[in-house]
Amino acid sequence: MLNIRFEKTTTPKPIPGAENPLTFGTIFTDHMFVMDYATGKGWHDARIVPYAPISLDPSAMVFHYGQEMFEGLKAYKTEDGKTLLFRPDKNIERANNTNKRICIPEISESDFLDAIKAIVKEEEAWIPTKPGTSLYIRPFIIATDPYLGVRPSDTYQLIIILSPVGAYYKEGLDPVKIWIEDEYVRAVKGGLGEAKTGANYVASLASQVKAHKEGYSQVLWLDGVHRKYIEEVGAMNIFFKINGTIITPMLNGSILPGVTRNSAIQLCKHWGLPVEERQVSVEELIDAAKTGALEEVFGTGTAAVISPVGELRFEDDIMKISDGGIGEISQKLYDTITGIQLGKIKDEFGWTVEVN
Amino acid sequence: MLNIRFEKTTTPKPIPGAENPLTFGTIFTDHMFVMDYATGKGWHDARIVPYAPISLDPSAMVFHYGQEMFEGLKAYKTEDGKTLLFRPDKNIERANNTNKRICIPEISESDFLDAIKAIVKEEEAWIPTKPGTSLYIRPFIIATDPYLGVRPSDTYQLIIILSPVGAYYKEGLDPVKIWIEDEYVRAVKGGLGEAKTGANYVASLASQVKAHKEGYSQVLWLDGVHRKYIEEVGAMNIFFKINGTIITPMLNGSILPGVTRNSAIQLCKHWGLPVEERQVSVEELIDAAKTGALEEVFGTGTAAVISPVGELRFEDDIMKISDGGIGEISQKLYDTITGIQLGKIKDEFGWTVEVN
Ligand SMILES: Cc1ncc(COP(=O)(O)O)c(C=O)c1O
Ligand SMILES: Cc1ncc(COP(=O)(O)O)c(C=O)c1O
Repeated sequence: MLNIRFEKTTTPKPIPGAENPLTFGTIFTDHMFVMDYATGKGWHDARIVPYAPISLDPSAMVFHYGQEMFEGLKAYKTEDGKTLLFRPDKNIERANNTNKRICIPEISESDFLDAIKAIVKEEEAWIPTKPGTSLYIRPFIIATDPYLGVRPSDTYQLIIILSPVGAYYKEGLDPVKIWIEDEYVRAVKGGLGEAKTGANYVASLASQVKAHKEGYSQVLWLDGVHRKYIEEVGAMNIFFKINGTIITPMLNGSILPGVTRNSAIQLCKHWGLPVEERQVSVEELIDAAKTGALEEVFGTGTAAVISPVGELRFEDDIMKISDGGIGEISQKLYDTITGIQLGKIKDEFGWTVEVN
Repeated sequence: MLNIRFEKTTTPKPIPGAENPLTFGTIFTDHMFVMDYATGKGWHDARIVPYAPISLDPSAMVFHYGQEMFEGLKAYKTEDGKTLLFRPDKNIERANNTNKRICIPEISESDFLDAIKAIVKEEEAWIPTKPGTSLYIRPFIIATDPYLGVRPSDTYQLIIILSPVGAYYKEGLDPVKIWIEDEYVRAVKGGLGEAKTGANYVASLASQVKAHKEGYSQVLWLDGVHRKYIEEVGAMNIFFKINGTIITPMLNGSILPGVTRNSAIQLCKHWGLPVEERQVSVEELIDAAKTGALEEVFGTGTAAVISPVGELRFEDDIMKISDGGIGEISQKLYDTITGIQLGKIKDEFGWTVEVN
């Protein structure tokens, strides 16, 4: 068991009531988990303290050289009052893969899970219960050495903050319109694409701004080498149903291995659907859209779980999908995954972890 | 003129005396320049305040999505007591190019220059005078919105901190050994390579650690598409002298347009040397090294000005250069650029800007 010291807030904030529509990532709970790292000492001084500003030297490496990582998962309240996490082991495993890639010292998997459970337990009253809501958990690590040379930092902080959230995409299970980007590149093989680190998100901003101007809510990235194979959306992996087969880009080193992606693949296989993880070119999509073989498109991610895609645009080609409606598999995946997350559907895969 | 408010420190720190060997980026002066941005208000509240920690909400976007940029230039003290900046207009221009790429609001060029001059003027006593030393100037901008969604921030801080420095590379004008990376990629066309933003530096760490283990002090990157064209070093651009011609990779969108690179090109042309900015493949280097045509290799960057390269390694090919010594052009560029920076050589190009 990770030894965690507690310091209770003396100024608790009001917990938003069920009448308040929650947005994403704007309200934070009363406490946060913090743990320090120093070379020689390792990870130490795990603590739950009042949510408060972080104070860092202006030369702290995170401000200059981007040595920072994050994760995102959710806690759900079941109807009978249990608190469930969804596959936290996958997020912890991915966190350590990110850490390795960007030279942040790894964290013991069991300590990490203890930390998440402890802070969620402390803030259990903040978990909203309305359909579609949850408590978003954001662990992140920042490099804190006050030093202006480029090298891995010798000191870090792991911080876990919590935010009660509504749906990430305002559109909810409404189909989204997605812009396939042909100018900017998010990540390339050999780079940081499979790590969950700020670099990939700052790289996406300019394209996102452009897509919004054109009336598209998300960007779908192409690979940086050939500029023709589908990678993923800004914060989701992407799936296609073509002639009855479920197809998603394979994990190639430049896309994030999504937890929801993995769950969707397992479920589709469990249901006996043919599933392929492979290269998908944008021409294949355009052709499939023309012949009517492109039956469904959906994104997978912690924030929205499943996002049906109603339209894809690549340059002058506009592909309308599922007549702009919600595809059958999209709906079934959404219902099943959220059902498991909320404890309403039997968890045959051992995906949920109770906090108690 | 930018209107700057001043708040003097009440606890000045001792200025390191000439007897102290300075390292790079560990000591900071008494004050820093700060300016805020908010959507609707623009850049505002320019101020020089005591050097002090920055306090940010844990959800501040810079900690999560890497929306941060920086610049690096130096102030020099001439023998007759003047304070000179070297081509600050180029850094300011590049800063705004970075800003555009990563959706940070641009800053008026004249305000930016006023800010740099004002903080350097305030801290003039900190400029060291021993050969090779200078006052390093680090402007940087961070995204400060307390919000967990991925989008450009609505608020930012520009901060300028100053650090009296010795030579960046401990080896000084000693030739460095450089590792040509064949596994990791720093940046790719369409990505952030030509911007000065944390993403490119965090991407370089794993390779740098590997190179150090192998006994190499720097990494030379190959392009992310073909994985065969030379790009640049971690914090320097790279030049080759092959059969009497000075060759440097052209600005292709994935390398930083170095100020020192630009100065070196101008000087070489001024001296009547043939200069080519073009693609250079690693095979071309290996072949040139074999035949003896590879006469010189050097890096250019603000930190070390010119770094002669004594050895390049690509996989099992080890290329020894200039017999491990300092090439003629490397030495001449170093002497000329540092001479201009220190006001010892006539500034025919209008590169220096006096602070007064
Ligand atoms: C770039 C990117 N791809 C995919 C995903 C989906 O991953 P997961 O299903 O683990 O949430 C995310 C975020 O959550 C992401 O940021
Ligand atoms: C990646 C990179 N390339 C090149 C350079 C050299 O640029 P400059 O000559 O402007 O210092 C730097 C840094 O200074 C750098 O960080």
